[in-house]
Amino acid sequence: MMAYGEIKLFAGSGCPTLAQRIADYINVSLSEWDILRFPNENLFVRLHGSVRGQDVYIIHSHDRPVHRNIMEMLIAIDCLKRDSAGRITVVVPYMAYSQSDKKDQPRIPITARLLANMIEVAGADRWMTIDLHSGQIQGFYNIPGDSLTAFHILVEYFMAKNLDAVVVTPDLGFAKRGRNYAAELGFPLAFVEKRRIGNEAGRQALTLIGSVEDKDVIIVDDLIDTAGSIEQAVNVVKSQGAKSVYISCTHLILSDPATERLRNLPIKEIVATDTLPLPEHKMLPNMTILSVDTLLGEVILRSHEGRSVGELFNE
Amino acid sequence: MMAYGEIKLFAGSGCPTLAQRIADYINVSLSEWDILRFPNENLFVRLHGSVRGQDVYIIHSHDRPVHRNIMEMLIAIDCLKRDSAGRITVVVPYMAYSQSDKKDQPRIPITARLLANMIEVAGADRWMTIDLHSGQIQGFYNIPGDSLTAFHILVEYFMAKNLDAVVVTPDLGFAKRGRNYAAELGFPLAFVEKRRIGNEAGRQALTLIGSVEDKDVIIVDDLIDTAGSIEQAVNVVKSQGAKSVYISCTHLILSDPATERLRNLPIKEIVATDTLPLPEHKMLPNMTILSVDTLLGEVILRSHEGRSVGELFNE
Amino acid sequence: MMAYGEIKLFAGSGCPTLAQRIADYINVSLSEWDILRFPNENLFVRLHGSVRGQDVYIIHSHDRPVHRNIMEMLIAIDCLKRDSAGRITVVVPYMAYSQSDKKDQPRIPITARLLANMIEVAGADRWMTIDLHSGQIQGFYNIPGDSLTAFHILVEYFMAKNLDAVVVTPDLGFAKRGRNYAAELGFPLAFVEKRRIGNEAGRQALTLIGSVEDKDVIIVDDLIDTAGSIEQAVNVVKSQGAKSVYISCTHLILSDPATERLRNLPIKEIVATDTLPLPEHKMLPNMTILSVDTLLGEVILRSHEGRSVGELFNE
Amino acid sequence: MMAYGEIKLFAGSGCPTLAQRIADYINVSLSEWDILRFPNENLFVRLHGSVRGQDVYIIHSHDRPVHRNIMEMLIAIDCLKRDSAGRITVVVPYMAYSQSDKKDQPRIPITARLLANMIEVAGADRWMTIDLHSGQIQGFYNIPGDSLTAFHILVEYFMAKNLDAVVVTPDLGFAKRGRNYAAELGFPLAFVEKRRIGNEAGRQALTLIGSVEDKDVIIVDDLIDTAGSIEQAVNVVKSQGAKSVYISCTHLILSDPATERLRNLPIKEIVATDTLPLPEHKMLPNMTILSVDTLLGEVILRSHEGRSVGELFNE
Amino acid sequence: MMAYGEIKLFAGSGCPTLAQRIADYINVSLSEWDILRFPNENLFVRLHGSVRGQDVYIIHSHDRPVHRNIMEMLIAIDCLKRDSAGRITVVVPYMAYSQSDKKDQPRIPITARLLANMIEVAGADRWMTIDLHSGQIQGFYNIPGDSLTAFHILVEYFMAKNLDAVVVTPDLGFAKRGRNYAAELGFPLAFVEKRRIGNEAGRQALTLIGSVEDKDVIIVDDLIDTAGSIEQAVNVVKSQGAKSVYISCTHLILSDPATERLRNLPIKEIVATDTLPLPEHKMLPNMTILSVDTLLGEVILRSHEGRSVGELFNE
Amino acid sequence: MMAYGEIKLFAGSGCPTLAQRIADYINVSLSEWDILRFPNENLFVRLHGSVRGQDVYIIHSHDRPVHRNIMEMLIAIDCLKRDSAGRITVVVPYMAYSQSDKKDQPRIPITARLLANMIEVAGADRWMTIDLHSGQIQGFYNIPGDSLTAFHILVEYFMAKNLDAVVVTPDLGFAKRGRNYAAELGFPLAFVEKRRIGNEAGRQALTLIGSVEDKDVIIVDDLIDTAGSIEQAVNVVKSQGAKSVYISCTHLILSDPATERLRNLPIKEIVATDTLPLPEHKMLPNMTILSVDTLLGEVILRSHEGRSVGELFNE
Repeated sequence: MMAYGEIKLFAGSGCPTLAQRIADYINVSLSEWDILRFPNENLFVRLHGSVRGQDVYIIHSHDRPVHRNIMEMLIAIDCLKRDSAGRITVVVPYMAYSQSDKKDQPRIPITARLLANMIEVAGADRWMTIDLHSGQIQGFYNIPGDSLTAFHILVEYFMAKNLDAVVVTPDLGFAKRGRNYAAELGFPLAFVEKRRIGNEAGRQALTLIGSVEDKDVIIVDDLIDTAGSIEQAVNVVKSQGAKSVYISCTHLILSDPATERLRNLPIKEIVATDTLPLPEHKMLPNMTILSVDTLLGEVILRSHEGRSVGELFNE
Repeated sequence: MMAYGEIKLFAGSGCPTLAQRIADYINVSLSEWDILRFPNENLFVRLHGSVRGQDVYIIHSHDRPVHRNIMEMLIAIDCLKRDSAGRITVVVPYMAYSQSDKKDQPRIPITARLLANMIEVAGADRWMTIDLHSGQIQGFYNIPGDSLTAFHILVEYFMAKNLDAVVVTPDLGFAKRGRNYAAELGFPLAFVEKRRIGNEAGRQALTLIGSVEDKDVIIVDDLIDTAGSIEQAVNVVKSQGAKSVYISCTHLILSDPATERLRNLPIKEIVATDTLPLPEHKMLPNMTILSVDTLLGEVILRSHEGRSVGELFNE
Repeated sequence: MMAYGEIKLFAGSGCPTLAQRIADYINVSLSEWDILRFPNENLFVRLHGSVRGQDVYIIHSHDRPVHRNIMEMLIAIDCLKRDSAGRITVVVPYMAYSQSDKKDQPRIPITARLLANMIEVAGADRWMTIDLHSGQIQGFYNIPGDSLTAFHILVEYFMAKNLDAVVVTPDLGFAKRGRNYAAELGFPLAFVEKRRIGNEAGRQALTLIGSVEDKDVIIVDDLIDTAGSIEQAVNVVKSQGAKSVYISCTHLILSDPATERLRNLPIKEIVATDTLPLPEHKMLPNMTILSVDTLLGEVILRSHEGRSVGELFNE
Repeated sequence: MMAYGEIKLFAGSGCPTLAQRIADYINVSLSEWDILRFPNENLFVRLHGSVRGQDVYIIHSHDRPVHRNIMEMLIAIDCLKRDSAGRITVVVPYMAYSQSDKKDQPRIPITARLLANMIEVAGADRWMTIDLHSGQIQGFYNIPGDSLTAFHILVEYFMAKNLDAVVVTPDLGFAKRGRNYAAELGFPLAFVEKRRIGNEAGRQALTLIGSVEDKDVIIVDDLIDTAGSIEQAVNVVKSQGAKSVYISCTHLILSDPATERLRNLPIKEIVATDTLPLPEHKMLPNMTILSVDTLLGEVILRSHEGRSVGELFNE
Repeated sequence: MMAYGEIKLFAGSGCPTLAQRIADYINVSLSEWDILRFPNENLFVRLHGSVRGQDVYIIHSHDRPVHRNIMEMLIAIDCLKRDSAGRITVVVPYMAYSQSDKKDQPRIPITARLLANMIEVAGADRWMTIDLHSGQIQGFYNIPGDSLTAFHILVEYFMAKNLDAVVVTPDLGFAKRGRNYAAELGFPLAFVEKRRIGNEAGRQALTLIGSVEDKDVIIVDDLIDTAGSIEQAVNVVKSQGAKSVYISCTHLILSDPATERLRNLPIKEIVATDTLPLPEHKMLPNMTILSVDTLLGEVILRSHEGRSVGELFNE
Repeated sequence: MMAYGEIKLFAGSGCPTLAQRIADYINVSLSEWDILRFPNENLFVRLHGSVRGQDVYIIHSHDRPVHRNIMEMLIAIDCLKRDSAGRITVVVPYMAYSQSDKKDQPRIPITARLLANMIEVAGADRWMTIDLHSGQIQGFYNIPGDSLTAFHILVEYFMAKNLDAVVVTPDLGFAKRGRNYAAELGFPLAFVEKRRIGNEAGRQALTLIGSVEDKDVIIVDDLIDTAGSIEQAVNVVKSQGAKSVYISCTHLILSDPATERLRNLPIKEIVATDTLPLPEHKMLPNMTILSVDTLLGEVILRSHEGRSVGELFNE
């Protein structure tokens, strides 16, 4: 049963290699389109063939330049909608602005909700993403979506290592998800707590709550941006007697000076995924990149065929 | 400047006493209406006077019976809208369903978003609430709102006690907010971590991460429902040598058997607020109830007059 | 042709027996889900299997407790929508609040419209119900629906009795539909007219317009709530010489003191349907309950297969 | 307090004389605009002055040609919205299509709801009308409105006559409102019941339920269209011994052959209002036209000033 | 693959003959419905059979009376939506009000956008039309549509004539599209420029920019309304030595006095299409009417089957 | 009358100098906010003071980087909306994507409509811009707006020169607006017509329609992007004997290689406005920049005070 027409995959500029791997998994060719950038920076999308009545997936991560990629995604949705696509799903392995998800001070925006509104008003019918900064962002959407996680991929990788480790979160906001890693791996848990000192911006006191002495440490987080928190966490656990340090995360944003920081830290291995393309000059020898291609490919396939996605995770 | 007409406060069935205290603070009379319950359970709202062009506030907590109170709120909004109110703000000191804020397993609803949709479609222009279970719920609304907190009220109360305490959260989901309490009070922080044992429902291993030995303990959370987590946390900190135990929270839901549990636990003081009415038989001798009347009254006033709410908190 | 995927029936808490009868008629199993009620009264819905792309029907009457059942219906819709159901139809044999359908005095709500808005915003694609208090409520919905009637079921039952009767409506608001009963059965028509006496609430003068002397009387209405109007009507027709009295209605709300009233009245037979479950203690010996299972089952089937529903009634 | 700017009245083509009378009552000049009709029938509206931030009322009945007048109303709303009016209220003394308010057979539209949608999507903030065919049409609107009635005007007129009358409704759909007339005037009530005979279109049996012998009769209805029902009702009450016959209604549609029919019937007086302009050739000697100018003028004024409309009717 | 059910064509009152020709091309029967006009001018639509789940097309040009036809279209959409049609496409060969597409002076409406809003709110899923006055009107719709053109039909006809011509546009607003005609036919291009003289309404100076001396002239425009511009253009090109004059346009509105004007002008041939029915008394001997039946039929077919429409034009 | 609270101007990053000039004209200070750019490129907006109930204007041109600036605008709207601004107007002197206003080939987007949707869904109440590429884009908005023009500013400047000129448009799409310039200045009109030669991309034949011999030429357009069309037009009019060449336009986009091209062309003067900031290295000696500060300042003021904007242009 193919209620939404044939499956069509389009690769946005945000993760072309991953898109091709997903297409290979599903065993279809990527559909062709032009994505033009005019001298005045305006973008233009033109499909090579019609998508009337088809079941269309745009695979497009919010890689740099972030705003051009967001706009490219929205223009692509508009284009597909106006060509009478049967159903449009945006597949965004890494979704930008998911840290702007609440007003924790007055007079600021909630940009993750704005983004959800924009995706809906452009004409998407569904969305798919991996490891949102907070699960509540799902509720910013009125249209259905699949909020996936690389948790199982990452856990399975560490399982195979047979470590005697402690799971550490560099931030208390990740404490509950850190617990899930620790519980699944059967390790104890510890946290880095930060407090501002005085009123000076940037001065912080760091405390490790829990113990890591003579243990391997796996620092877990959803993403590495400037690697500032990671740097602090590595230093803290090292100073508390950690034997070795691993990092596990889903999204490698790697804003400057992340690469320099990571290069200089005593980290045994950084394990992450390919939700964002990794430029060669940011690739470090101790990095292991696990692909989300099978995960996304299988979910797209099940979505297309109307089969359960939850079953994929034995849920 | 009174751009939205005169201020009008209506008291819903969810927190009549608090509503009266707010009216007293603002120095206006509560507006009159009938809220009828027909034998077939249907509700009916009838305003005694016109609200054409006025700036209307419905003060109504989601007390028991929860669904009747939710429906009363929505019907009241519809009624005020159809009487051409100038602006309608729902003031919900305790908002139900705020724990249903994400899909943490497949094939479940996000009821907090549904509730936001219902409030918007009924015709509210703004909302106001205290200590949502997660701040992200703000983003479930497209209309503006004031997401307030009793944090300053509770912290100030404990400040005056001059304790030598550790702040403990009974759940890792509250870890980051627990840190805010600890930092503001200048105390160390510890957490209760729970893990499921085996596949049997309900069997859990509890660990205290951090140390409480010979210290006073303040267990902080957003609400007490059945007091199951509180009971576990009190037992854990006591077994780890805590000197005395205080509880601090905003909302006292107190579902059975909360009152029995709390009565039997070695708790020195339970400090909470009046976002929900406390029936006499649930009032315990060690409970201290701080009122949010001034907080809500002042925010309503500033909202009405177009003055900053953030300034109220020196923000 | 199954444009909307496979048919899936879910039974809400409002009419489980009727839902099972409909499933039997259609010859499918009811789909499984959990409807949990937490100690804080909050509801939680969890589907056992995926409904991606399927044609889903929620069968759920607005039985007592009315507001919990309304909320259950809305949460179920949200849950099914977020699981990417292909099409969602709410089947509500008895729809609450359908008497709140207009402002017949100033400063009141129109709750039936509010309910329609809530059903739409939750994500339903279609609705189905039986004998709305007024046909105009259909227009409260922008989404298509099937507004069905038990008229043919009830008329057919009385046809078989070969009475020499007068059809009487206990309220002038039902006059036109009373005419339809009378015309279809070939009987004359009469009405009970009520007028308030003076300004005292509740004092009413009753007049029978038309004649019932020495006749069987069939009092027809859409529902019996407290049975106050029915009591008045029975007394009036009896005092005007009616030989025997039958009652015909669709929905048995039976709010207190309906059962006591009905038990004490000289009624030969009360004929109604199973749009609402009838608790055993409200079942009277003179009640005949006709099932709407075939009606709803057939309409669901035709809706699923894209066949005409009107044809079912030779229209 | 003038929260919505200054009051501005615009007269549409549907009832220019009534609009002028309302302006006189309120003591403002009608605002000027051009309403052009191009040779291709397209309409064009152009305001002479700006309405930025003003409180605008379009007074415009759905007189013949009905569809041009509906479109004129919608174009006027769009024009005022795009000129940044502060608030737009459409005042439609007679609202067309209010008889198409439900699906009483399959596969038909609900045009009154469509009209409500059109008024909302064009940009109106509020609506005002007189004697809708059914009160439920209020619920077709999500925006607030004033659903007024000429009931008090008509009743007061008949009060002054000191008749000894029976109130008769020519249709059972008007039975309940007929009761209101009878109760207010202190007269008994009777109804004309119609039934189709056989399957031939148009053949009907008429019955008078209730008695009119030797009485004056006031036939009450919301409107007179072709006067077919009125003709039937007059003939029935005359044949049952009525002494004299009055007609009372709000809207004089007077579609052919209404004028001929009315001219030939033994009617003492036809009492109606000026919600629609009455062309001279349709004016009969026995017609009394009461104006709704004060009613609409007063409600517009109270709406503008944010005062209660209900109070106007001691409600 | 027939994702939207079976194809169903309905013929509105605006172009019944063209609708029949399209049905013949597609080889289906027109679906039956009643379009009734009541004495009070109100319209009523009733489908003879169900359209549940079907792929429905309403073929209906905005012929005179324009507003009745617009309303008929909208009521038909509402009717089909409420009968649960699977997908509704309005096919409007000539779309009224497409000249009201911007505010080129203050305080006027944009009626073409209003019309788009009305079509969407009534419930249409898609639209189809031919030669909009400006292409931007496509952007007034959020729903997808097919904005077609008779350009290829008209160009092909002139190609076959082997003229030695100049293409002339009677208005600078059509200059760019005139260039397309000229380029496709391989002819030079010229324009009639109009300027107002002084402040007197209607006094204009006409200039021909470019040369037509001793050439055949093809005056191209999207439509002929009163033929005023055409008259001016013919006179100008004649006075500048044009050998012969042809007119090419899509829509023949022919408002008075167009027919008289055209009859009296020295025009060799007027070539147009049947997007609007041509009444016999407006048919002139020098008119050639080309049908858009194949164009619309083929696009409807491709739309139904989910095939590319662009390919139809080698795009 | 200040129905929308006090006026508040915010300067976006797109045109800070112009924003300051507008604030000077209106005689208010710019309101303060932070616009932060995080290392991961995400933007963050934080208001220094509350805007509750105020009449807020964001002045922000779509300068480079275009997409970051579009996103900044949308985030700013969301931020102001969530702080309960009374009314939000986005003032965008140059609006990006206004050339993507229709589908002139299949399977492409209409990005200007998408942008309108995004502005509306973010929460803007009104918009203001200058010289849209096509006037129809106004109709892409459902919210009211002021579509202004620099026409009067530019014409007045050329008036003062006392030239004996011909107005030339470099593109037929600008023909009608070119006519307006010519008519206002009292000059004749000519056009550059382009046709593709063969199927090779880029090969074009240029024709001048009209005559420029021995005349000054004013080439008019809405904007200069890469200056490709301008280069062609200058070359054509020079080769046809133009005495001198002026350029008049509103928006100076100046994408590479515009500056090089313009520097090398025999242009006497380039007259444009400051809707976009002009970087020093793009400033040429023959450029004259006229400011739109008074125009925007005056319109903002009139909008705030509810006075006519049309009157500003004697309309």
